[in-house]
Amino acid sequence: MPKISKKGLSMPESPIRKLVPYAENAYKQGKTVYHLNIGQPDIKTPQVALDAVRVHSLDILAYTRSEGSEGYRTKIADYYAKNDIHVKHDDIIVTTGGSEALLFAFGSVMDVGDEVIIPEPFYANYNGFSTSSGVKVVPVISKIEDNFALPPIEEFEKLITPKTKAILICNPGNPTGYLYSKEEIKKLANIVKKHDLFLIADEVYREFAYDGATHYSILQEEGLDDYAIVIDSVSKRYSMCGARIGCLVSKNKDLIKTVLKFAQARLSPPTLAQIASEAALQTPQSYFDDVIEEYVERRNVLIEELNKIDGVQVANPKGAFYCIAQLPIKNSDAFAQWLLESFDVDGETVMVAPAAGFYSTPGVGLNQIRIAYVLNTDSLKKAVNILKEALKVYKD
Amino acid sequence: MPKISKKGLSMPESPIRKLVPYAENAYKQGKTVYHLNIGQPDIKTPQVALDAVRVHSLDILAYTRSEGSEGYRTKIADYYAKNDIHVKHDDIIVTTGGSEALLFAFGSVMDVGDEVIIPEPFYANYNGFSTSSGVKVVPVISKIEDNFALPPIEEFEKLITPKTKAILICNPGNPTGYLYSKEEIKKLANIVKKHDLFLIADEVYREFAYDGATHYSILQEEGLDDYAIVIDSVSKRYSMCGARIGCLVSKNKDLIKTVLKFAQARLSPPTLAQIASEAALQTPQSYFDDVIEEYVERRNVLIEELNKIDGVQVANPKGAFYCIAQLPIKNSDAFAQWLLESFDVDGETVMVAPAAGFYSTPGVGLNQIRIAYVLNTDSLKKAVNILKEALKVYKD
Ligand SMILES: Cc1ncc(COP(=O)(O)O)c(C=O)c1O
Ligand SMILES: Cc1ncc(COP(=O)(O)O)c(C=O)c1O
Repeated sequence: MPKISKKGLSMPESPIRKLVPYAENAYKQGKTVYHLNIGQPDIKTPQVALDAVRVHSLDILAYTRSEGSEGYRTKIADYYAKNDIHVKHDDIIVTTGGSEALLFAFGSVMDVGDEVIIPEPFYANYNGFSTSSGVKVVPVISKIEDNFALPPIEEFEKLITPKTKAILICNPGNPTGYLYSKEEIKKLANIVKKHDLFLIADEVYREFAYDGATHYSILQEEGLDDYAIVIDSVSKRYSMCGARIGCLVSKNKDLIKTVLKFAQARLSPPTLAQIASEAALQTPQSYFDDVIEEYVERRNVLIEELNKIDGVQVANPKGAFYCIAQLPIKNSDAFAQWLLESFDVDGETVMVAPAAGFYSTPGVGLNQIRIAYVLNTDSLKKAVNILKEALKVYKD
Repeated sequence: MPKISKKGLSMPESPIRKLVPYAENAYKQGKTVYHLNIGQPDIKTPQVALDAVRVHSLDILAYTRSEGSEGYRTKIADYYAKNDIHVKHDDIIVTTGGSEALLFAFGSVMDVGDEVIIPEPFYANYNGFSTSSGVKVVPVISKIEDNFALPPIEEFEKLITPKTKAILICNPGNPTGYLYSKEEIKKLANIVKKHDLFLIADEVYREFAYDGATHYSILQEEGLDDYAIVIDSVSKRYSMCGARIGCLVSKNKDLIKTVLKFAQARLSPPTLAQIASEAALQTPQSYFDDVIEEYVERRNVLIEELNKIDGVQVANPKGAFYCIAQLPIKNSDAFAQWLLESFDVDGETVMVAPAAGFYSTPGVGLNQIRIAYVLNTDSLKKAVNILKEALKVYKD
């Protein structure tokens, strides 16, 4: 029998995949499950995007250019300009989700055995893209006590080796909800310039910045043109995760030329989804205002309720729609499973994401969970109450 | 300035990319260019697929399951059953085009430095996927004199080393148009079983088999369950290349489990395109009958006209919609460029794909071109006439 590759064997499983059979069992038992575990918002997709697809006039659903149509890329550049980010259409490669942009970025700047430094906890699939690219993730720990602020520069510099090719940040952060300040971005800019590294910023949650804070993109930082690579996506911005449209943006021409070769090999990003995404750029500001208001309310409720629980510590998210909560338990994997298998309040329970999958340092984050606030405030309240009751009786 | 990866630098360019600026120049000069260079059919997408998207009732364009929805996969299994291929929905992972299925297959069965044997000439992007996976393509030459039939088994066995993990075939073949016989598939089955290799068959052109020949899938071959991996796609079958939906099919459970991890890392295949692709499965047989009839007519015209040109040798394609033609020239790269730059018949010229990009042995195929018969017969006749006139005057 032929053998699976070592790479294939070491590809990580999604941190919640293991829990899915337990959730399915809970449904079978007739339990209601509040899903705090997923990054799929319940927010409606802008009507203008959904309608654009309904009225399409294609008679051949053909490939587009590998880099995305020039029309769409020009409009993306306009969108950035409105966000005070100044790029041209040919600094942009349209990708199949932010996911593919990450994969192309990894492939373009790192060879097998190279290293990328990532503040942890981080988006779990960075592990998957690293494994499939043969790249080593070198984590630098950011702490819940510091609200997951940027670790001190010295911590980064200690980790830089000749194999280090890039620093990857997620801003605002999944799973931390942390929004980096201008000063923090400047610090990172200095390190990458000093050590000749790429700075990759996953800015897919750009629009989700709260409490009057504005997002500062690495593309706004002067002198960073050769170093900065932005990963972007329509998935969360317009609640159109299923479109599978994202982009990679960089003013480094060699980088774009290289990314284009990866893009050509896979021929084209999805055509229908580009139609929807191009239309989505007309989404009125009121849509975003409403969405932000909704998320802020949810976050406030969530954090307030969590803070009422004895022994729970939670970082206050300033962006995105996730937070990390530290629980008075030893192993959140077992706890999450137990919630689905053996606990309920009046037939209702919750599904959470154990945080260990968001760390690459073994043994860290075992007492933490990630909560996505993608439910309305009523459901959130109920869900947190279930957590509270559960912690009263849980023993590990 | 940070450096591009070695991998990125060695990613191949598409074999026709270099010609694009010359084509654009030709347009600017007001020339008509017949495109014999691309695999984008001019055939209409089935109405049922286009309509399904028009009437979608989504209000959130959400992620689907990473492996594709169970409903769609069940219908794909039904499609295969009609083609005498017996698989279950959980033998199928829906991918973003056949392209992604190839990438997942490579990642799941090969590590960096491993080898895959591929009869050449082959689909040029196999080079891209190999480079991005760090895998070495070991070509085994199939010859125009033999109509590109399977090279003798001894030729394969000579090339097998401890690093060989798979044999990859394309059936029917792009760029050769060759359709493997049942006997040839049986021969390959014997080699992979004897040497414990995976047999990957790119069957995206399955439906395009001519002259009464039937396609024999590796999934129909008994005893091959652990070895066979099929790559499939809706792109050509329903002329919906822009959907970006394909799938990977295997009865090897470990393989599917591994592919699923790659699929999870990128979250989901495109949702709208899955709706279109699911609907496309209802395409009536008459659609395919018409399409096949059209391609056969085009092929007949093309081959007949090419055979009239002195010094041109052409393999007779039995499937897909490409053929390789050997021309009485030394360098088809230069010839293709010259056609666009310096030649026309009454303001019309042709764009062809130099065949060297479809070979990985250096120096082979330099006097060959690939022709895609994705134009109607009138245009094909004109295009071949232009080639004929060009060859009368061209000197290299
Ligand atoms: C931080 C981050 N980056 C990238 C992605 C990838 O999203 P997509 O491929 O849908 O654009 C996600 C999705 O959850 C994410 O949370
Ligand atoms: C032989 C072959 N395999 C795979 C593909 C990839 O097609 P897609 O990703 O559109 O399914 C193509 C496209 O031309 C092809 O010719």
